[in-house]
Amino acid sequence: MIQLSLIGIGTGNPDHVTLAAVRALNAADLVLLPRKGEAKSDLVDLRRLLCRNLVTDLERTRIVEFDLPGRDAQAEYLDAVDAWHAAIADVWAELMDRYLPEGGLVGMLVWGDPSLYDSSLRIAGRLSASGREVEVKVVPGITSLQVLTAEHRIPLNALAEPIQITTGRRLRERGWPDDAATVAVMLDSGGAFEALPPEGLYIWWGAYLGMGKQSLIDGPLADVGPLITERRAALREQHGWIMDIYLLRKC
Amino acid sequence: MIQLSLIGIGTGNPDHVTLAAVRALNAADLVLLPRKGEAKSDLVDLRRLLCRNLVTDLERTRIVEFDLPGRDAQAEYLDAVDAWHAAIADVWAELMDRYLPEGGLVGMLVWGDPSLYDSSLRIAGRLSASGREVEVKVVPGITSLQVLTAEHRIPLNALAEPIQITTGRRLRERGWPDDAATVAVMLDSGGAFEALPPEGLYIWWGAYLGMGKQSLIDGPLADVGPLITERRAALREQHGWIMDIYLLRKC
Ligand SMILES: C[S@@+](CC[C@H](N)C(=O)[O-])C[C@H]1O[C@@H](n2cnc3c(N)ncnc32)[C@H](O)[C@@H]1O
Ligand SMILES: C[S@@+](CC[C@H](N)C(=O)[O-])C[C@H]1O[C@@H](n2cnc3c(N)ncnc32)[C@H](O)[C@@H]1O
Repeated sequence: MIQLSLIGIGTGNPDHVTLAAVRALNAADLVLLPRKGEAKSDLVDLRRLLCRNLVTDLERTRIVEFDLPGRDAQAEYLDAVDAWHAAIADVWAELMDRYLPEGGLVGMLVWGDPSLYDSSLRIAGRLSASGREVEVKVVPGITSLQVLTAEHRIPLNALAEPIQITTGRRLRERGWPDDAATVAVMLDSGGAFEALPPEGLYIWWGAYLGMGKQSLIDGPLADVGPLITERRAALREQHGWIMDIYLLRKC
Repeated sequence: MIQLSLIGIGTGNPDHVTLAAVRALNAADLVLLPRKGEAKSDLVDLRRLLCRNLVTDLERTRIVEFDLPGRDAQAEYLDAVDAWHAAIADVWAELMDRYLPEGGLVGMLVWGDPSLYDSSLRIAGRLSASGREVEVKVVPGITSLQVLTAEHRIPLNALAEPIQITTGRRLRERGWPDDAATVAVMLDSGGAFEALPPEGLYIWWGAYLGMGKQSLIDGPLADVGPLITERRAALREQHGWIMDIYLLRKC
């Protein structure tokens, strides 16, 4: 019997872990630490740092790094994701069999919060579906969206109004969603906001939130849109990768 | 000069505070702890507990409780909110003048995350607008929405799909929002989901999340809707107050 804790670790600031996350990490017999290829090695470094600083008994808690399988960029999106989740589930299962043949507590460090545009819960579901006895627990973590609003010191919602959280791809394809005064955009491979008529929109943008290289821009979209596009390209060039998120509000 | 930290403390589980929140709390010269009337005294108890457990130097850090002014339930909603924020800003200003006439660091404990349906940032903005030198900092906290998804072990979003976060009032008035496969509902004074045709909807509901008296229900809305309404009324009766939140997804 495996107990699997999906532990949200925040999105760059090591102080954003909760006391519950620290506890869950120290309760684990095995901590699995995914590596995502060279480009994003900063992200693995943060996970390593958290383990080094927070795990108190390294004799008891075994930390194992593993390479995440890659996703097929050629295949149709949902098919590719499905195959990718299956491949990751296989890797998890193999690691659990190897290191915890008698069962035990596995901790998995999840970027931000496990509920938000993250596949860990779906992958864990596959383990159970394939007949393994896996009991899943979720430890919530601070999301990139919360760090964005915290660093800009803004509320997420306009007073008593709804918020839409969406992806860059969707914003590009469908434009401004109905029924929303505020739109938060994640997973944008670059400048989906350019597809919107900028008049009457204000943007709060952030990249590498919580990290030393954090970068923030805000202003009327018509004024700062081009600046964000430029800054994003330059930062991406400089660091080899980028993660950014933004909030748009009608004003 | 006042530095004001709005410190997110999670929504009931004291282990959901972050290391950054603990640090901010201990850095403060003055911690302001709002009381919201007898009914919700459990919520004040949690704040007291956090201060007692986490503040290490009670000689240095002064903890002051204060009564939140009430909101005018008769007046038109936005007017009432405006007057209420003004009254709270006056109370804050008075407490700062009294306890920190020379300036200093003020910590304010905010339920959940300060960005999500919370007025602290708007009230702090009023202090600055009225000519005071107040520098605001935000320390993010785990939201009730994250505890809901964590306790039900579900992702917030359907794969690559957007999420709408809205209020009970809005759901009742406008029905299911366009452009959303998932809708999270907060600030519902009771059963706004009853206004929706339940077919094809699944609901995950939670009350008192993170607390000992936490209660969870999930299922097809057509099946469990009446059960939720009943449970909610019974719990409210039993405890004298209730806070609940739910996620609806098309299935
Ligand atoms: C696969 S999703 C994971 C989100 C994560 N679970 C969370 O709670 O924030 C990755 C997206 O999150 C956002 N993101 C995550 N970390 C970020 C950071 N440190 N700075 C800016 N955006 C970030 C970006 O929009 C990125 O494309
Ligand atoms: C004024 S809003 C504050 C939200 C808070 N800032 C957050 O981050 O969750 C209050 C609403 O949040 C939700 N809520 C807050 N705490 C909750 C809890 N412990 N259990 C269930 N719902 C909660 C309810 O929908 C409630 O009506």
